[in-house]
Formats: sequence, structure tokens, C-alpha cells
Amino acid sequence: MKVAIQGEPGSFSHEAARRMLPGCDIVPCARSAEVFDRLEAGKVPIAVIPIENSLAGSVTEHLDLLLARDVFIQRDFHLRIVHNLIAARGAKKSDIRRAFSHPVALDQCRDFFRKNPGIQAMPFYDTAGSVKHIIENGMRDSAGIASRHAASVYKGRILAQGIEDDKRNFTRFVLLRRKRRVLPGANKTSIAFGLKNIPGALYKALRVFAERDISLSKIESRPIRGRPWEYVFYADFLRGDDKLARGALLQLQAVADMVKVLGVYPAA
Amino acid sequence: MKVAIQGEPGSFSHEAARRMLPGCDIVPCARSAEVFDRLEAGKVPIAVIPIENSLAGSVTEHLDLLLARDVFIQRDFHLRIVHNLIAARGAKKSDIRRAFSHPVALDQCRDFFRKNPGIQAMPFYDTAGSVKHIIENGMRDSAGIASRHAASVYKGRILAQGIEDDKRNFTRFVLLRRKRRVLPGANKTSIAFGLKNIPGALYKALRVFAERDISLSKIESRPIRGRPWEYVFYADFLRGDDKLARGALLQLQAVADMVKVLGVYPAA
Repeated sequence: MKVAIQGEPGSFSHEAARRMLPGCDIVPCARSAEVFDRLEAGKVPIAVIPIENSLAGSVTEHLDLLLARDVFIQRDFHLRIVHNLIAARGAKKSDIRRAFSHPVALDQCRDFFRKNPGIQAMPFYDTAGSVKHIIENGMRDSAGIASRHAASVYKGRILAQGIEDDKRNFTRFVLLRRKRRVLPGANKTSIAFGLKNIPGALYKALRVFAERDISLSKIESRPIRGRPWEYVFYADFLRGDDKLARGALLQLQAVADMVKVLGVYPAA
Repeated sequence: MKVAIQGEPGSFSHEAARRMLPGCDIVPCARSAEVFDRLEAGKVPIAVIPIENSLAGSVTEHLDLLLARDVFIQRDFHLRIVHNLIAARGAKKSDIRRAFSHPVALDQCRDFFRKNPGIQAMPFYDTAGSVKHIIENGMRDSAGIASRHAASVYKGRILAQGIEDDKRNFTRFVLLRRKRRVLPGANKTSIAFGLKNIPGALYKALRVFAERDISLSKIESRPIRGRPWEYVFYADFLRGDDKLARGALLQLQAVADMVKVLGVYPAA
């Protein structure tokens, strides 16, 4: 089973794909748009992407892509994020002067850098990619910050483990398919909607759910590209594809400019 | 007048500070927390920070800091963002192999990188800092992507101007002071609030405004650190410090876990 992910082998997306689909073959993509391109073109049947981190917030580029592209969320998964300092074999921690990683990962290891002032944080495009980079280039004074799995993929050595500030650090991943397919037990729906620019528009939109006692587990606004200070809303509600939910979505269409169902799936 | 900003001289924050307070002296800080530290300690009377970009969305770290720290928004300002490719004097565009900048700036110049496949995008911690870096280190094959002002601060040469994908690219900056001070003509209020974890809580919170015909110009949720999948909401509403707004805030306190007024100011 081929699964497109953004990032290198050993990335957290790779880990999430392995956990959701044991034995899958990953197709690593440099950019997120490429993941969606491959899925939409039918070159892969499945993609796995991160959507939200419990500390850093939403992966906004992925919210934009879920809205723009013709794909459907079939499952979600919560991965606990553990960061490790990884260097080439034979390196010692006292040799390390620079630690490369994705800016979000560096930001989640602030205490580590405070306690190790001799190590400079270096932003890099990817967590696992940073480990690949320092090992392939034989950099002896540098390390990457990435998952334990990245250390095994690139045959690196873990010099410090669990260096993230906060252990309650989770990323929510979604499994995407091209066509709508609702699994048995689906009890959660993700939608995006745009509102007419009138007072109380969001209040009226939320009334649709409140009147039916449907719980929203998340709501978030994102700017619309090219229309400064106008917003699209992303919401999750705790209901599958049933009569009550369909009634709510129908009524939402009457107050909204646009409604898109991004997925209906069993809550992780 | 001393004004703390995050980033180097020549950054967009520097530009916004100059436009809001002509003739001010900036105090550049490496990290955003440092900007708030200096303001709270009374070492500077004013700070200017970006809060939201019309393409990239909110600067989430700054939302977190506005909530956590004891500061007050006194004004806001919309700065049009123009990106330029800037190299050392004497460099030619055909020499350039790598362009350094902040990841958000690189992401806003995707078309430029598509049209110039010989130039690799290199994430860096700051826009103006990237220009400083390549000029101070005499890097002849590299450029930075930053404001026109950065080129003049570091005596660089603009090799390509206006390379951002979308001209409707604005960043909203806020001017912060330590103490609450509401300017005449204030007609906008920024708040943060937390909700009890009960169905319809957000709907009830928004009813407070809808019942009074108070328009929300923005609403956004952010995860709460250490409480995975719980959220704090940030909202702006179009009303100053008057009886109607005070009534709404009082009623909001009855349905919310926490309400904080981040600022009351004249809308930009």
C-alpha cells in the first residue's frame, strides 16, 4: 500500500503512516502540495498529513489544501511527539555545536537549548531531513533533532532523548483518500465554511449546531488568500453521517457562502 | 522614544515601528519573549509586534504572549509586505544559487522560486537578518529576501523587487504599552476568552455580541499549552470602551472560564 507523506523517511509523518497502516510503503514528497497532487492524480491511493499540534496549533498550509483540493478524510490519529538529539555514530555530545531541525521542533526544545548554551539552534526544512543532512555530509560538530525512528533510518546515534519541553505534545494526523468513503463507527465530521459579511453571521452558523445539541470539538478561522481580513472557518463536530448532521449541514448552507465537508470518520 | 521589536534593524517590524512612530529608536530583540520582558520591566515604554498576516494567518506565538503577559494594545497598523532579493554590492542575479529568508517569506515567494529553479530557498530565522548574514559573511553566491529598508540598512543591492506571489499581502502590527491607555476614537476591542467544556459554549459566548448587534471582525482558536485539544479563543469586536461593550464583557464572564481584554484602540 503506497502512502504519500510530506518529508523524509523517518519523519513524524512516516511514523504516523506506519502506525495507521502497518507495513505500508511511503512515498516521500518535498512539498505538501505534491502530496495532494499525487493523491488527486491517483498515483497513490492514500496520503497521511499532520493537521494540528497540541502546542504549536494548526498546520495552516494543510488546512488551505484540504479546502482547495478534492480529497476526503477517512481517519485521524494522535501521535505523541518525542524529540531526540541525533548525531553521526562516534560523535559525543560535547562535540556538538549546532542542532538542526524544523523550526517548530526547535521551538519545542527551548529548555534544552537554554541548558546547553554551547549548542546553537539551526532552522532546517525537516526534522528527519536534518539527521540525513548531518550524517550524509559527515558533519561531526552538528546534530539533528528528530524522532527515534529517524536515528534508525539514517543509522545515527541518539545523544539525548525526550528533549521536548512538554510531554503533552501530540500531533493529529489525518488519512486522506481521493473519494468519499465513510468507515463504520464514524462519529466526527470536519467541515470548512465561509460566511456572508454581515453582523452575527458566525453566531447564526453556530446556532445550527447548538439547536441540535451537536458539540463542536474545534473551530478555527483562517484568512482567505487574496481577500485580506476575510476568513474561512474550519470546524469539527461530534456526529457522523446521520439525519441530524445532514439537517445541520443543510441549514448551514442557508447562512453560509460556502460549505465543504472535509471528512466523516471515527474520532481517534 | 525607545521601541522594542523582534528581529534585526531593517525588518518589517522596524518598518512598522517607523511608520507608527516616526523618528523612534528601535531596540532589536532576538526572541519575541524578550520584547515582552523589556516592556513589562519598564526598560522600553513601547513595543511593536506583528499579530497577523493576510496570507499566512496569525503569528501564534504573539497571541500566546498577549494572553500570558501584562501588556495592552494601544494601536494597530496594516503594513503592505513587499519582498526583494538582496545581495552584496557587485553581485549579479546570475551568480545567486541560494536565497535565505524567514520560512514565511520564502513561502510567499513560491512563484519566484518556480521561475528561478537555479536558486534554492534556504530557511533563516529572520528576513533582514538573512541580508545581514550574507553581506557580513561576504557570500557571493547567496542573497537574502527582505524589505527595501533592509537593503539600505546593510548596504545591499536589490537584484529583484516585489517578488512576493500576491500583492494583497499585508501584516497587521500592534503597538503595545505596559499600562491600559485608551486613545480617543477607540472603536475596536481585542479579547481572549476560555470556555467551559460544555456543548454550545461558543454559541452562548457569541450570543453576547449578537444580541447587542456588535460585529466580530475576527475569531480564532488556539490550543492551550499543557491541555491537549482544549482551546482559548481570540476575538476582535467593533466597539470601543462604552456601556454596550462593557455589558457584553460582563455577560461573557458569566459563560466563560476566563476573559482578558487585550486592548481597546482606534481601528487601523
